[in-house]
Amino acid sequence: MARIIELETRDVRFPTSRGLDGSDAMNPVPDYSAAYVVLRDSDGGEGHALAFTVGRGNDVQVAGIRALAPLVIGRDVEEVTGDLGGFGRRLTGDSQLRWLGPEKGVIHMAAGAVVNAAWDLRATREGKPLWRLLAGLTPEELVSLVDFRYLRDALTPAEALALLDAAGPGRAERELSLLDDGYPAYSTTPGWIGYDDAKLARLAKQAVADGFAMIKIKVGGDPADDVRRLSVAREAVGPGFPIALDANQAWGVEEAIDRMAPLRRFDPYWIEEPTAPDDVLGHARVRAAVTPVRVATGEHAHNPVLFKQLLQAQAVDVVQLDATRVAGVNDNVAILLLAAAYDVPVCPHAGGVGLCEMVQHLAMFDYLAVSARQDSRMIEYVDHLHEHFVEPARIVAGRYTPPRLPGIGARMLPSSLERYAYPHGPAWRGDDPPR
Amino acid sequence: MARIIELETRDVRFPTSRGLDGSDAMNPVPDYSAAYVVLRDSDGGEGHALAFTVGRGNDVQVAGIRALAPLVIGRDVEEVTGDLGGFGRRLTGDSQLRWLGPEKGVIHMAAGAVVNAAWDLRATREGKPLWRLLAGLTPEELVSLVDFRYLRDALTPAEALALLDAAGPGRAERELSLLDDGYPAYSTTPGWIGYDDAKLARLAKQAVADGFAMIKIKVGGDPADDVRRLSVAREAVGPGFPIALDANQAWGVEEAIDRMAPLRRFDPYWIEEPTAPDDVLGHARVRAAVTPVRVATGEHAHNPVLFKQLLQAQAVDVVQLDATRVAGVNDNVAILLLAAAYDVPVCPHAGGVGLCEMVQHLAMFDYLAVSARQDSRMIEYVDHLHEHFVEPARIVAGRYTPPRLPGIGARMLPSSLERYAYPHGPAWRGDDPPR
Repeated sequence: MARIIELETRDVRFPTSRGLDGSDAMNPVPDYSAAYVVLRDSDGGEGHALAFTVGRGNDVQVAGIRALAPLVIGRDVEEVTGDLGGFGRRLTGDSQLRWLGPEKGVIHMAAGAVVNAAWDLRATREGKPLWRLLAGLTPEELVSLVDFRYLRDALTPAEALALLDAAGPGRAERELSLLDDGYPAYSTTPGWIGYDDAKLARLAKQAVADGFAMIKIKVGGDPADDVRRLSVAREAVGPGFPIALDANQAWGVEEAIDRMAPLRRFDPYWIEEPTAPDDVLGHARVRAAVTPVRVATGEHAHNPVLFKQLLQAQAVDVVQLDATRVAGVNDNVAILLLAAAYDVPVCPHAGGVGLCEMVQHLAMFDYLAVSARQDSRMIEYVDHLHEHFVEPARIVAGRYTPPRLPGIGARMLPSSLERYAYPHGPAWRGDDPPR
Repeated sequence: MARIIELETRDVRFPTSRGLDGSDAMNPVPDYSAAYVVLRDSDGGEGHALAFTVGRGNDVQVAGIRALAPLVIGRDVEEVTGDLGGFGRRLTGDSQLRWLGPEKGVIHMAAGAVVNAAWDLRATREGKPLWRLLAGLTPEELVSLVDFRYLRDALTPAEALALLDAAGPGRAERELSLLDDGYPAYSTTPGWIGYDDAKLARLAKQAVADGFAMIKIKVGGDPADDVRRLSVAREAVGPGFPIALDANQAWGVEEAIDRMAPLRRFDPYWIEEPTAPDDVLGHARVRAAVTPVRVATGEHAHNPVLFKQLLQAQAVDVVQLDATRVAGVNDNVAILLLAAAYDVPVCPHAGGVGLCEMVQHLAMFDYLAVSARQDSRMIEYVDHLHEHFVEPARIVAGRYTPPRLPGIGARMLPSSLERYAYPHGPAWRGDDPPR
C-alpha cells in the first residue's frame, strides 16, 4: 500500500521587476514567484504544484503549505487520489487552520497547492494530462469533488449532474476539434503599464499577426495615460479587434464608472477588476453603468462563495478563474459548474508563473464536459517564464494546443528550481543577468 | 529622533481544547492562540499587539507578521505614530505582499497586528488607554485613519466628518456615565457546544445573576441538540431574557432558514454567522426569512469592503467587529463609521485570547465619539484567559469597566508569554502535539 511520505516546499522567485514585465496599476514591480510543493509517495510517485505570488511574502505562502503537511503525510495514496473531493474538504475544513481564512488568502491558496499536487500525483499515476483525466470522470465523480455546503442556494448537486449530463452529446467531436484547432487565446503581453507607447504598438500589432483573439491593456494609472495608451493600441490593431482593459482593482466604485467614460469611445471589450475584488455589489453597479462594455473579474476572487454571489447579483459578464487562488481543481470545478449554470463564459486568468500551463487544462475540460462551448471564451496568454516548465504552454496560430504530458502542468525544470531558489539561488546572488 | 529598531514575534498557544472551552459547530477543539508582536523603538518604547488564532497555523500567522518587518524597521517613530492612517495604508498596500490577500486572511491579520502594535506604542507614549486616545482625536484626525478607496460609494470623508461632528454634543456626560457605569456586556460562557445540559443551565443562571445583558448559545450541530439546549437555556433564564444563537457558519443559506424554524419559538435575540461569512447575499436572504430574529455577523468579515456590502444589502441587524481580523484600529474605525452611517448597532466579537481586552476600547470610543449610543449595543464576554494580561478586562455588575492603563489592551504578562510559548514552553513540554 503506497503512502504519501513527503511534502517538500521550495521558495522560487524570478526577478521580473527588473524589466517591468507584469507591471500594472496595483503591481508596479512584481517578482513573479512560486510557492512550490512536491508530494512524494512510497512508490516513487510525485505530485507537483505551486501557488503563484508576486514576490515578497512567497515565504509566508510556503509556510502556509507546510502547515498542511501533518494532514497529508502518512495518508494512503489510493484513498487520497480515489476521493480528491474528500481530501480537499479535509484540508479546507481543518477546524484550527480554517480560522486563518476562512477559505481565503494564504491558507486557502496553500490548500489549493496541496490539492493540486494530489491531482498531479493522480494524473501522473494514470498517465493522463489533467484535462483528459477530468473529462473522463463520470458526472457523479465530478459532482463529488465540489463542496456544496455554501453553494446549494445557487446550484444543487442534482442540477450540477443534469448540467454535466447535458454536455455529453458531441463530446467526441469537440475533442477532435480541440486536438486539431486548440483553444482560443488572448494576449496581455502588449499592455503592461510600464511599457512605452512604441513597445505597446509594436507588441499589439504582433499579437494580431500572431492570431490572438484579443489583446489586453492595463489601465488605472494617470487618466490621460489611459486614454493615450488605449488610443495607441486601437490605432495599432484597427477597428473591431477586441481590446480588453484591466484596472487591477485600482478604482473605487463611482471612480470606475467615471474613469471608464472617456475610454468607451475606443470600444473596449471588457473592463477587468474595476474595483475591489470582494465587492459584489460594486461590480454589479459598475456593470449596470458601463454596459455594453463587459465586466470581468475573478483572479482575486477567493472562493466559490464569492463567484456564486457575482453570478447571483448579475455583477459579471466574464468569470476569470485562477489556477492557484482558490482551493485547487476542486474549487475550480465548482466555479465552472456555477458559471455554466448562470450561462456566463469563463475566460481564465493566466500569466504569472505556470498559470498558463495549469489553467489551460481547466478551460479544455470545460469545453469537453461542462459548458461544451468555446464562443466568447479565451484563455489569457503572456509570453514569459514558460521555458522553466517541463511542458511549456504551446500557442499555435494564437490558440492553446492541448498539453500531452501527464499531470496538471505545474512541473518546473529542476535546473530552474535551483537557479531561481530564493534567496540563495544563482539568479539572486547577482550571478545572473537581468531578464 | 527615535526609530523603530525591532519587531519581535512570539507563537503563544493555550491548550484550551483539553476542556472544550470555546467549542462550537465549526471549532470543536480550539487551542486559543496568539501570534504576538512587539515593536521596540530606540527610546525604549514598546508597542504590543497580537493576532488571535485557534491553534494550528499560529506559526503561519507569525510568519505573516514577520514578513512586514522590512516595512517597519528603521522608521521614524514620530512619523509612524503621527500618521497611523498612512502607516496602515503602507502595510496593506505593499504591492507584493498585497497579492497574498488582497486585504484578507493571514497577511491582512498580520497588518492588523502591526498596525495595532503601532497604536499601542503611541498610546503608551501618550500615557492613555486607546479608548481615551481615540476619543481625543479630532474628526479630521479620525477620518485620516480610514482608507476610503473602496468605501466612498457608501461613505465619503465629508459624510464621516459630519457624523463625527454630530457626535460631539453630550460627550462629557457620556464619559462620566461610562466611568460610573461601564459598558453593557453579554456572556458566551454558558453556551459552548461541548458543555452538557447541567453545566449549560448552571452557567446560564449564573450569567443572569451576574448582571449580563444576554447569553449566547452555540447551535449548528445536531438539530435535536439545538432544540434541547436552547430549551434548557430558556428554562434557565426565564422568558424575556435575551438569548443569542451562534451557528459559526455551519449552515448553507436555505439550510439556515430551515434550521432556524424550530428554534424561533424560544424567542432568540439574534442568529450569528448563519452561513459563510463572505456571503452578503446569503445573509440578506436569511435575514428576510428569519425576521424578527436579528442576523449578526462580522468576526470573520475580512475587511471594510465586506462590512460595507453587508450594510448596503441590509443583510445584518448587528455588526460584530473583531479586534484582530481586520487591519487593526484603522479598519475598525472605518467599520464603526460605516455602521453608524447605516444606523446599525455594533456588538463586538470577543473571547479568544485578549479580544475582550482589546475590543472594549473600540466600543467605548464608539459610545463617546461615533454612534454616541449604548442602546442595543453590548460587548461579548467570555471568562477565560484574562489572567494572562497586564490589565485583564474587568466586569462589574455585568458591564465592562473602562481600562485605565495606557495602550490597546493586548499586553500579556511575561510569565504567560514564557509558559505558553509554543512548542517549547512549560505548558506544552511533554504533551502530545495538539490535534
